Amino acid sequence: MSKIILMTGGARSGKSRLAENQALSLGSPAIYIATARIWDAETQARVEEHRARRLTGWRDIEAPLDLVGALRDTDGGAPRLVDCLTMWLTNLMMENRDIEAEAEALIGCLPQLDAPVIFVTNEVGMGIVPENALARRFRDAQGQLNQKIAAVADEVHLVTCGYALKVKPQ
Amino acid sequence: MSKIILMTGGARSGKSRLAENQALSLGSPAIYIATARIWDAETQARVEEHRARRLTGWRDIEAPLDLVGALRDTDGGAPRLVDCLTMWLTNLMMENRDIEAEAEALIGCLPQLDAPVIFVTNEVGMGIVPENALARRFRDAQGQLNQKIAAVADEVHLVTCGYALKVKPQ
Amino acid sequence: MSKIILMTGGARSGKSRLAENQALSLGSPAIYIATARIWDAETQARVEEHRARRLTGWRDIEAPLDLVGALRDTDGGAPRLVDCLTMWLTNLMMENRDIEAEAEALIGCLPQLDAPVIFVTNEVGMGIVPENALARRFRDAQGQLNQKIAAVADEVHLVTCGYALKVKPQ
Repeated sequence: MSKIILMTGGARSGKSRLAENQALSLGSPAIYIATARIWDAETQARVEEHRARRLTGWRDIEAPLDLVGALRDTDGGAPRLVDCLTMWLTNLMMENRDIEAEAEALIGCLPQLDAPVIFVTNEVGMGIVPENALARRFRDAQGQLNQKIAAVADEVHLVTCGYALKVKPQ
Repeated sequence: MSKIILMTGGARSGKSRLAENQALSLGSPAIYIATARIWDAETQARVEEHRARRLTGWRDIEAPLDLVGALRDTDGGAPRLVDCLTMWLTNLMMENRDIEAEAEALIGCLPQLDAPVIFVTNEVGMGIVPENALARRFRDAQGQLNQKIAAVADEVHLVTCGYALKVKPQ
Repeated sequence: MSKIILMTGGARSGKSRLAENQALSLGSPAIYIATARIWDAETQARVEEHRARRLTGWRDIEAPLDLVGALRDTDGGAPRLVDCLTMWLTNLMMENRDIEAEAEALIGCLPQLDAPVIFVTNEVGMGIVPENALARRFRDAQGQLNQKIAAVADEVHLVTCGYALKVKPQ
């Protein structure tokens, strides 16, 4: 089974940068699996900023929905960075997919992979309860997905201010 | 004095499950002190999900407001799990109770107890400042209550992705 | 170069109190650099509460915008506590200042200082994505500022429930 690492943290905590470094330390070139769908200028700017930082050593793949397919197709030795589970979950919810089934399929495919996978995700549950019902549903789904990935991960890190606290193993 | 443990974390971080395991490791059957008032379908679903998970080994008590009474009445040796302080605080605020006096009464009763108490609470202060004044008041009250319980607790854990970081003792 | 410490955490996590203790442990009297502008009763109450706690051992300075100037002017040996970067950032944004240039100027002045500086800041990125565009911009700016300070800090601590987790060094 491949090595699985989960990097979680808040917005602009530096988790993507740490995850990129970790991926490259496991092998270069690494494969960047982007899940973001570019639907506005803010997302566009963020994607371009991430891309500008990853100057060399990366092959880029887009997988807004079929993350399992992307992981299977790229399972050739090079480490994969999935950035990020929050965007993937957003896309699934916007398409009215069955979130639990999709999460199970993702968890189910991991033991069949050989090359490392580093997942970036977000902490979204440490604020006040959102007034918006969809936002509450999203934060529940995100928390449950994070727990499922963490349960099968070799390492889990919580990132704040650009530094990681090791959550698993301890 | 009884052993006091505080488990904090975001929504859907896995803190209740970890707290349940910790309670059962201290003694079985354990006593589940539920503070949730069921006022809508979402809360109902969440309570039922928690109940379904706790198959055996538990005695259930409801204490939406009189947490001190429930802790005194159940102080017979078995570990107690209070799930959660956030719901208790919500109920107190909805009833216009004096939050500080209630918190002091809770802290004041703890040294008189013999059997262990595990408190579950929420991190609600790591998002953007809420626009709603009541939400700001709630998050202040929650943060202050968490600090007060933590100050007298033997252990404090921060839960993310289903795993706990030990905050106290270090 | 002066010793730099960053204390981050949620609202009402106890980070200011821990930062005050840390400042006084490095030297007394210490200098309290307040960045809050008092524009409403809530802020007024919070400032007065902080002031009431710091009974003795402090000299107070106000620096809502010119933090670099305040740090240079007070660089005489006594430790400085900057409380907090979140208020400073709020003031800069309300004045339409160039946030990146201000952050660079702050980072740039730190190697020229001799006396210790303890910065208090907030985690604001661990909730659901705010619907308000200004709030999103603020949380991005706060996260980036926290990363920049942390990168040059000797110590970074994440505070929850009144206790600190050491994030840097590890």
